[in-house]
Amino acid sequence: MPRNFADRLLDEIDAKQNPSCIGLDPTVVEMPPFLKREVLQEFKIGDLEPDQRTEALFRATGEAIFRFNKAIIDKTLDIVPIYKPQMAFYECYGPEGVRAFLRTVRYIRDRGSLVIEDAKREDIGKTASFYAKGHLGVVELLDGSQVPNFDVDSMTLSPYIGSDSVGEFVKVCSEFGKGCVVLAKTSNPSSGELQDMRFADFHGGRLLYEQVALLIDQWGGSLKGQRGYSSMGAVVGATYPAQAERCREMMENAIILVPGYGTQGATGRDTVPNFNEDGYGAIVNNASKLIFAYRDEPYRTKFGDIRFAEAAREAAQIMRDDIVSAMRAAGKIPSKW
Amino acid sequence: MPRNFADRLLDEIDAKQNPSCIGLDPTVVEMPPFLKREVLQEFKIGDLEPDQRTEALFRATGEAIFRFNKAIIDKTLDIVPIYKPQMAFYECYGPEGVRAFLRTVRYIRDRGSLVIEDAKREDIGKTASFYAKGHLGVVELLDGSQVPNFDVDSMTLSPYIGSDSVGEFVKVCSEFGKGCVVLAKTSNPSSGELQDMRFADFHGGRLLYEQVALLIDQWGGSLKGQRGYSSMGAVVGATYPAQAERCREMMENAIILVPGYGTQGATGRDTVPNFNEDGYGAIVNNASKLIFAYRDEPYRTKFGDIRFAEAAREAAQIMRDDIVSAMRAAGKIPSKW
Repeated sequence: MPRNFADRLLDEIDAKQNPSCIGLDPTVVEMPPFLKREVLQEFKIGDLEPDQRTEALFRATGEAIFRFNKAIIDKTLDIVPIYKPQMAFYECYGPEGVRAFLRTVRYIRDRGSLVIEDAKREDIGKTASFYAKGHLGVVELLDGSQVPNFDVDSMTLSPYIGSDSVGEFVKVCSEFGKGCVVLAKTSNPSSGELQDMRFADFHGGRLLYEQVALLIDQWGGSLKGQRGYSSMGAVVGATYPAQAERCREMMENAIILVPGYGTQGATGRDTVPNFNEDGYGAIVNNASKLIFAYRDEPYRTKFGDIRFAEAAREAAQIMRDDIVSAMRAAGKIPSKW
Repeated sequence: MPRNFADRLLDEIDAKQNPSCIGLDPTVVEMPPFLKREVLQEFKIGDLEPDQRTEALFRATGEAIFRFNKAIIDKTLDIVPIYKPQMAFYECYGPEGVRAFLRTVRYIRDRGSLVIEDAKREDIGKTASFYAKGHLGVVELLDGSQVPNFDVDSMTLSPYIGSDSVGEFVKVCSEFGKGCVVLAKTSNPSSGELQDMRFADFHGGRLLYEQVALLIDQWGGSLKGQRGYSSMGAVVGATYPAQAERCREMMENAIILVPGYGTQGATGRDTVPNFNEDGYGAIVNNASKLIFAYRDEPYRTKFGDIRFAEAAREAAQIMRDDIVSAMRAAGKIPSKW
C-alpha cells in the first residue's frame, strides 16, 4: 500500500520548514535570453530548411523549457517541499511540451521531491477515469500491460460536474497514494461571478464556493492520512482572506493550495487564514515572481539573466520567510519547527 | 478575417443534412483485436529488450489510436459534419497520445471537416490564454515565430472560474474564427449536485446551470456569425430534456453540444428540445455506441471486428435518421433540407 500523499507532503513541509510551492510556469517570452540562444544554437535552427525548421523549433522549445525548470529545481530542492507545474504552459506546445512536462516531473520525483500538476481537469465517469489513470495511476498499453505515465503526486480538478468526476480521481488516489486539489474559491478578479453567489435558504443559504467546500470535505473523507490531513485538497486564493477563513472552517482536514501570492498581490499575512492552528493545512504557490525573479530588481542587478536560478532561490527564501513570520505572528506555527 | 466557426458548422450541417457528431474516444480495451495485433507486429514489440519495450508500446498505442480514428473518419466523412475527439483518451498516453490527437485533428481538417476538442479546460488570465493559443490560436516558439499547433475548430470549457477564463478563449476565437463550448448542464447522474441548486431570490432565483446559461449568452454576443448563431456554444446533456428546454430559451444563439445520446440512454426524441424552431442550434454527440458499434449486435454479426468502420458508419446513419425524424415530427427541420 503506497504511502498517503498528505502524509508525504506534510513530512516534506516539516523537512524544509516551508509551506510554499514553486509554480513552474515557463514561457518563451520570459525565459532568460542566453538560455534561448544556447538551445537555438545547439539545435542548429539557423541551418535548417523551412520544412524541418518548425518541428525542430518545437523540440528546441521543449528542451529549453526543461532546461529552465531543471536549473530552478537544482537551486531550490533543498528549500521547497513541492513544485507545481501548470500544464497549460507545456500542453500548448503539443507532444514536445508534454514531453518537457514529463521530464520535469520525473526530475523532481527522482530527487525525492513532490509534484502537484495544475491541470484543472474534470469530466464524466469513464472519461474522468482516463484522466485519473494517465496523470495519477497507470495506463493500459496496446499489449494490455499497465504502466504509470505522468505519475504526478497530486493534480488540480474543477468541481462543476460533481461527484461523477471527482469520484474517479478519488479511486485512483486511494489505490496509488496520490492526491487531488479541487477548485473552491479561485484567486482571480471574476471568481465571485459564480463562486460568491448565494443559494436559497433551503440549500442552507450557502455561497457556491462554500457548497463546493462542503463537498470537498466529504470527498476527502476516504483519503485521510495518519497525520490527520486528507489527500483531497482545495484551491483557495490568497487574494480573498475572508473567504479563506470560511473555507478553513468548512474543510478542516484539507491541505489548501493557495494561489495569488506575488503577481496577484497577496502577501504572507494574507495567507495566514488558510492555515490551521497547528500550523499546517496550507501550501502557498508563487510562479512568475519566483521563476522570473531575475527580471525584477533587486535580482536583475544582482544576478543578471545567467544566474536566473539563483535569483529564483533568493526570491523563494524571502517568500518562505515572509509566510513563516506571518504564521509565527499569528501563533500558527508547527510545534516541531 | 477567418470565417466565423458557427457559420462554418451550420454549412457543414446543411451539407450533410445531419446535426450529429462522432465522438472519437478510442480505448485500447475496446479497439478491434485485429488492429492491435497488426500494430504490435509492425512495431516488432515481441523482439524488443525491456528497456526499449515500454517506449515502443507508447508509440504503438498512439499509432493504433490514429489508425483506428482514420478508418472511422474515412467511412463517415461524407455523412457527419463534425468530430469530437475527447482529449482524456489521448492525453493519458503522454506525448505519443497527444501526437495521435494532433494527427487525427489534421486528418479531419485536411479533408475539409471540423473538429471540436473535448477538453473542458479553464484557468485564470495568462494561463487560460496559453490554453487558448495552443488549442485554437498560435503559439510562440523559441525563436519568437508564431505557429498554429492543435488548431482545432472549437473546444469545450468549464465555467467555474468565470469571465477571467472564458474571456481569454473568446479573444482567440474572435481572432482566428474559432469556437468554444462551455459546460452548462452536463449529462451525468451527479450533474444536479451543484448545477441544479437554486440561488436566492435576489439572484433571480435561478439554478446554477441557468446562471451559467445566462453568462454563456452574454459571452457569446461578440462571436455571432452571419447565420445568426454564435461560435460560443453550450454543453447541455440529452439526458435532461426539461433543462434543455430551459437552456434553449436562455441561449437562443448558442449551438448546443448535446452529449448523452446512446451509451447514456437518450434517444432522438430527447434531443429535440435542444433545437430551435428553425431546425438549427444543436449538435448531438455519440462516441462509444458509434465507434465501437462493431462490438454490439446486429453490427457484430454483420461486420465482425475487421469491418469496424463500416459498423460505425451504419450506426451513425441510424443515429442521424433517428434524430432527423424526431426533429421532423416536432416541426423543427431546416427549410432548405
